[in-house]
Amino acid sequence: MIVRDRPSGFRLFLMLRGSVLPRILPALTINILIATLVTMSHGDLFKLKITLTTIPFTLIGLPISIFLGFRNNTAYDRFWEARKLWGELLIRSRNLSRQCQSLITYPVTALASNGLNDIRVRMIYRAIAFSYALKNLLRDLPGEDMPQWLTQEEVKLIQTSKNKPDFLINRMALDLQQSMNEKRIDPCLAANIDTTLSAITAAAAACERIKNTPIPFSYTLLLHRTAYIYCFLLPFGLVDSIGFMTPFVVAIVAYTFFGLDALGDEIEEPFGLDANDLPLDAICRAIEIDLLEAIQHTPLPVPMLPVGYRLT
Amino acid sequence: MIVRDRPSGFRLFLMLRGSVLPRILPALTINILIATLVTMSHGDLFKLKITLTTIPFTLIGLPISIFLGFRNNTAYDRFWEARKLWGELLIRSRNLSRQCQSLITYPVTALASNGLNDIRVRMIYRAIAFSYALKNLLRDLPGEDMPQWLTQEEVKLIQTSKNKPDFLINRMALDLQQSMNEKRIDPCLAANIDTTLSAITAAAAACERIKNTPIPFSYTLLLHRTAYIYCFLLPFGLVDSIGFMTPFVVAIVAYTFFGLDALGDEIEEPFGLDANDLPLDAICRAIEIDLLEAIQHTPLPVPMLPVGYRLT
Amino acid sequence: MIVRDRPSGFRLFLMLRGSVLPRILPALTINILIATLVTMSHGDLFKLKITLTTIPFTLIGLPISIFLGFRNNTAYDRFWEARKLWGELLIRSRNLSRQCQSLITYPVTALASNGLNDIRVRMIYRAIAFSYALKNLLRDLPGEDMPQWLTQEEVKLIQTSKNKPDFLINRMALDLQQSMNEKRIDPCLAANIDTTLSAITAAAAACERIKNTPIPFSYTLLLHRTAYIYCFLLPFGLVDSIGFMTPFVVAIVAYTFFGLDALGDEIEEPFGLDANDLPLDAICRAIEIDLLEAIQHTPLPVPMLPVGYRLT
Amino acid sequence: MIVRDRPSGFRLFLMLRGSVLPRILPALTINILIATLVTMSHGDLFKLKITLTTIPFTLIGLPISIFLGFRNNTAYDRFWEARKLWGELLIRSRNLSRQCQSLITYPVTALASNGLNDIRVRMIYRAIAFSYALKNLLRDLPGEDMPQWLTQEEVKLIQTSKNKPDFLINRMALDLQQSMNEKRIDPCLAANIDTTLSAITAAAAACERIKNTPIPFSYTLLLHRTAYIYCFLLPFGLVDSIGFMTPFVVAIVAYTFFGLDALGDEIEEPFGLDANDLPLDAICRAIEIDLLEAIQHTPLPVPMLPVGYRLT
Amino acid sequence: MIVRDRPSGFRLFLMLRGSVLPRILPALTINILIATLVTMSHGDLFKLKITLTTIPFTLIGLPISIFLGFRNNTAYDRFWEARKLWGELLIRSRNLSRQCQSLITYPVTALASNGLNDIRVRMIYRAIAFSYALKNLLRDLPGEDMPQWLTQEEVKLIQTSKNKPDFLINRMALDLQQSMNEKRIDPCLAANIDTTLSAITAAAAACERIKNTPIPFSYTLLLHRTAYIYCFLLPFGLVDSIGFMTPFVVAIVAYTFFGLDALGDEIEEPFGLDANDLPLDAICRAIEIDLLEAIQHTPLPVPMLPVGYRLT
Repeated sequence: MIVRDRPSGFRLFLMLRGSVLPRILPALTINILIATLVTMSHGDLFKLKITLTTIPFTLIGLPISIFLGFRNNTAYDRFWEARKLWGELLIRSRNLSRQCQSLITYPVTALASNGLNDIRVRMIYRAIAFSYALKNLLRDLPGEDMPQWLTQEEVKLIQTSKNKPDFLINRMALDLQQSMNEKRIDPCLAANIDTTLSAITAAAAACERIKNTPIPFSYTLLLHRTAYIYCFLLPFGLVDSIGFMTPFVVAIVAYTFFGLDALGDEIEEPFGLDANDLPLDAICRAIEIDLLEAIQHTPLPVPMLPVGYRLT
Repeated sequence: MIVRDRPSGFRLFLMLRGSVLPRILPALTINILIATLVTMSHGDLFKLKITLTTIPFTLIGLPISIFLGFRNNTAYDRFWEARKLWGELLIRSRNLSRQCQSLITYPVTALASNGLNDIRVRMIYRAIAFSYALKNLLRDLPGEDMPQWLTQEEVKLIQTSKNKPDFLINRMALDLQQSMNEKRIDPCLAANIDTTLSAITAAAAACERIKNTPIPFSYTLLLHRTAYIYCFLLPFGLVDSIGFMTPFVVAIVAYTFFGLDALGDEIEEPFGLDANDLPLDAICRAIEIDLLEAIQHTPLPVPMLPVGYRLT
Repeated sequence: MIVRDRPSGFRLFLMLRGSVLPRILPALTINILIATLVTMSHGDLFKLKITLTTIPFTLIGLPISIFLGFRNNTAYDRFWEARKLWGELLIRSRNLSRQCQSLITYPVTALASNGLNDIRVRMIYRAIAFSYALKNLLRDLPGEDMPQWLTQEEVKLIQTSKNKPDFLINRMALDLQQSMNEKRIDPCLAANIDTTLSAITAAAAACERIKNTPIPFSYTLLLHRTAYIYCFLLPFGLVDSIGFMTPFVVAIVAYTFFGLDALGDEIEEPFGLDANDLPLDAICRAIEIDLLEAIQHTPLPVPMLPVGYRLT
Repeated sequence: MIVRDRPSGFRLFLMLRGSVLPRILPALTINILIATLVTMSHGDLFKLKITLTTIPFTLIGLPISIFLGFRNNTAYDRFWEARKLWGELLIRSRNLSRQCQSLITYPVTALASNGLNDIRVRMIYRAIAFSYALKNLLRDLPGEDMPQWLTQEEVKLIQTSKNKPDFLINRMALDLQQSMNEKRIDPCLAANIDTTLSAITAAAAACERIKNTPIPFSYTLLLHRTAYIYCFLLPFGLVDSIGFMTPFVVAIVAYTFFGLDALGDEIEEPFGLDANDLPLDAICRAIEIDLLEAIQHTPLPVPMLPVGYRLT
Repeated sequence: MIVRDRPSGFRLFLMLRGSVLPRILPALTINILIATLVTMSHGDLFKLKITLTTIPFTLIGLPISIFLGFRNNTAYDRFWEARKLWGELLIRSRNLSRQCQSLITYPVTALASNGLNDIRVRMIYRAIAFSYALKNLLRDLPGEDMPQWLTQEEVKLIQTSKNKPDFLINRMALDLQQSMNEKRIDPCLAANIDTTLSAITAAAAACERIKNTPIPFSYTLLLHRTAYIYCFLLPFGLVDSIGFMTPFVVAIVAYTFFGLDALGDEIEEPFGLDANDLPLDAICRAIEIDLLEAIQHTPLPVPMLPVGYRLT
């Protein structure tokens, strides 16, 4: 995620970081080149005058605007749903921590210093590990930031697990079972914790859904083909009416089309490491801090800060 | 579902797998043929000059853009809702598995090796069978992948059942009842499992709704008629202003219109076996792996992989 | 609901059943007639040349596209919400049936042959009656298909009831109360059945909302007036540029405008008996079959099939 | 709310009741007058030819269509959300009534004749009073239709209450508490009634939100300014191309713009007494009838009917 | 939030407070200046005629309308979601207050005069403090309006807390735990209060999500760049067709574009102190009054009123 104030005045046009310009530069350059050649030849291709006016572009503009609008909304919806799911994960982790502390009965307060024999502390550590495990699953990372919250035994077991977050949720469920067996919690209240575990499972599985189900490939293909044909033909349609301004106008139109498209590519897969993707590392850290503070774990880690305006 | 990286450069225009082009080729060919004939006769039909300009197409463009945008959004919403429902099924199956293991009390851990007398194992097997049963119902398949998770008796009973998934849910409810009778679960916690069963029922019935209720037929008719008339008349409107480029422009416009329409046809019935339909086989397999791993069933089946970029 | 495969080729233009064409024929005919007269008089009205070009239609097109798009989306949203509500009713009826069978304790299995003294059977029959009662309420029908599921006494009581579905839900609640009094169900589980009853109430009341609250009348008026003026004036705007093709183009534009409007009229009140309305009879029958099969009632009724491509 | 069948034919253009025409007449008249003057002077203002063509209107049309579309959707969403909230209130009141009758244990049936000492009857009366109190709060009315459902003591207490509906919900909660103290209800079931009370609170507070938070004022200002400038300048842009038809076309465009705007004004504050506002009186009456019928209160009030096609 | 009646007539054009005009004045002035210069030089730049017509603006209008529409909807959705979340907070605070009073058992009524030893009073005070703490967190304020509701000890503890609202929720959870330990509440009912605490956590965390996750920066950049280029080039496209009216038309177009953009900037971060931001102070005060009145705390604070039409 880019964290940056909105620039004003001419600086708006000069900044590159956070812009999609670098990404679309190759296609844009080719397009401007074509436009320049067309302008210099006055629209002739091998001595044959290409008789295009702007009318076809108005007609093709109709399906294009449907495509681009649809693509844009869908990509942003995926991004925003993903953000909501990680917000949900934060909420439910906090709830789980609060419920462990207030609904499971122990003679002493739930403090990190009680160690892993305290079921409450164990569940809270696992909730932290869960968010890191999910992040690593979504980003296809090995997961070296996770083991510190688990026991030796679990670290070994989790290696062979097909779905590490799911493994952790099941372990938390066994902790809950143990609390009930030890009569530390009333079944009515255990039902509430079980509901929290279900909600965490739901948020994680919904993230997997977004990761595994892209916008149907045929859409992408149809959209790209149409947008490219549109932009590459545009100079022929404009050269007769606006003359030497053609490359300039083509550049603007292509910049918006390719830019919108490239931006969609970035945010429709919101769990990656592109500039505009979600800052999962920072969210995991936030969960970690919240949960550790509640059990007075020291020292607390520090929140992640943007590096070069970027938060990962 | 097509699983494929976005092509770049000229390869974009050459690929056919995942494209809707083959599907719309007949209509497109006829349309281009008409456009060529109209261009060669300079817009005369039996010596009568058809006096169309592009103005009518701008006017008809208005309702068409409403139709196409509506159709496109509605079809995608159906696709995405269907995907969410199968995600919900995955979530609830995992929850059911977790709840069986942690809320139903047995002296031993829930392992596949306990066999079908262990209620927990039985319910988990049935949850797997449920997803296959639902897939087969939605795809009108006979269901040969399902019996391995059921007892002999159930295999016989399910044959005559009108709604196989519903039959399985009712069986799971009886398992839950038995757990309560055997005092293996507190009613408060049984209520949570009952809620999970209700959620599975809801996801399944919502899939049936999507399957059984298409977009109203009159919409489809109105949309198709308008789009076809538009594309077939277009050459008459263009020939006077862009001359020999007419067939080319008509081809582009028709490609986007027919393509958007064909794509909508595929994804508005998302449970079929078209290229862009949902990969129900792969999702069922994923549920199977998740649930079997939790009870340490061996050997675990392998995840399904795309064949020729396609996942069914 | 029209149940029909999408036609291809020229048959697309010839089919009438499922088309809105018959419905809009009068207005369409008048409009074409006007267009023909205008064409023959070259746009003069009583010797006064009406100086319209297509420009005003482009300007008026803007609010019209907002109106038509809004109307279309709203009408379809009502249709689809209504369909979801009946899907919800199906879901909740199945849940109620499952909960009655698995959560209410009797020494014997819940079979139809136990008769109406078995609370479980009674509640399931009432759930069937509920769906028929709701259908009849929404369609303003007398309700002759309902009494077979009720006792003599209830048939009499329900006659004078202002809200028959509500009456039945209250009766089911008393059955639940009786189960609790007879200690056949734990309060925690009764709470889940009570939740199901609340959900059924909610689905029914939401259907009443859709029936009783049309799209604000002023919208309809504003939309109709604008669309009619647009179509009736259109010939004056077109005749100078496209000559004898005017009536033809006007026919296409008017067909889409009036067609979209007529379709909206049908589906915005989705509980009626128009061609594109919801097949409530078939859904009630489906609920009936599902619930009766669960208690092994014989003989089972058969699912409803479309008559002349129509399912009511 | 206007309750009226859709008119057909010429009657469509003649009806005034339910139309927004009277409301926008002043602005419309001025606009047509300006258009007439501009037409007569051929676009000169104090002998200076205003050189506008239709091009600027096409350009300004773009932000206007975004504004109008946004305004229209937002206003309708507020209207429909408000309607859903009152539907929710109806649902929850019915649920509360059903739950009181079936979950609170008394030796006798819950009848109105038991009087206010029966907690069930008391809660049902208060639920009726609640809907009237909420209506009066939303419409800034004194609330003379409410006291009949309360005790003398409560009538006095409620006078000084800052939030009358909230006061009533708290009273119902105390009734629930009393039921528990008298062991008339199991805590698990009391939790369900408590959930119903929470849902009623939520529906009421959401209505307050809609009432207290209008669409941001700057939007309204920006939209109105742009629409007025557009319509008042339009004659200058049209007069050169369509001559004496200018006032006529301006009238149509202004009618749709001002009409859409006036309609938005009415429905964006859906709790008022404008023609298209929600019929809160009728909904309150419906709740009253439903709840009183359940406890066999006699005589039942009659449903409200539209007066001059209007339901308040 | 601006609280003001809609102006009518010419006053519409004269009012500044609540208008975004002051904010966009610099850019607007520069734009009009450019337009005037272009008009005076008849479109020549350093003696070179810039050959732009309005055609490029129609083409660029397509992506611009997608951008502006998207930006506008997204910004408003954020605003409205934020408003709903604070409505949710109000609802849940009222519910918490009601539940404390009716579900936690004490021999005496819950009155403010019982003091902080009464768990019910304590929890209600903390709920008030919670809303102020959340407001201060969202507005980056020090929080001087909060301590009056907390004990001396808590005031000290909360200083070092990383997330003050979260700290307060955890304290309320401990109060709930104490109630259970003292047998003042049944676990089934405690589960309902725990659910309310979870909902308050959820509303607060969702507000943090909106605050911390702006619309992706690249969008903002792409949109601003395109809009500025469009407006600054516009005079060249218009001058040949509308002559001396160019600066006037450019002013209108730029006013709507920049205005829509500035408005989006204000409401997409709805928790700030801009004119159109949410009145968090007033909502906190409303929560305070509601909760204090319920426990008969005197004197009650007065509701906040707009100052100069503004409510903060």
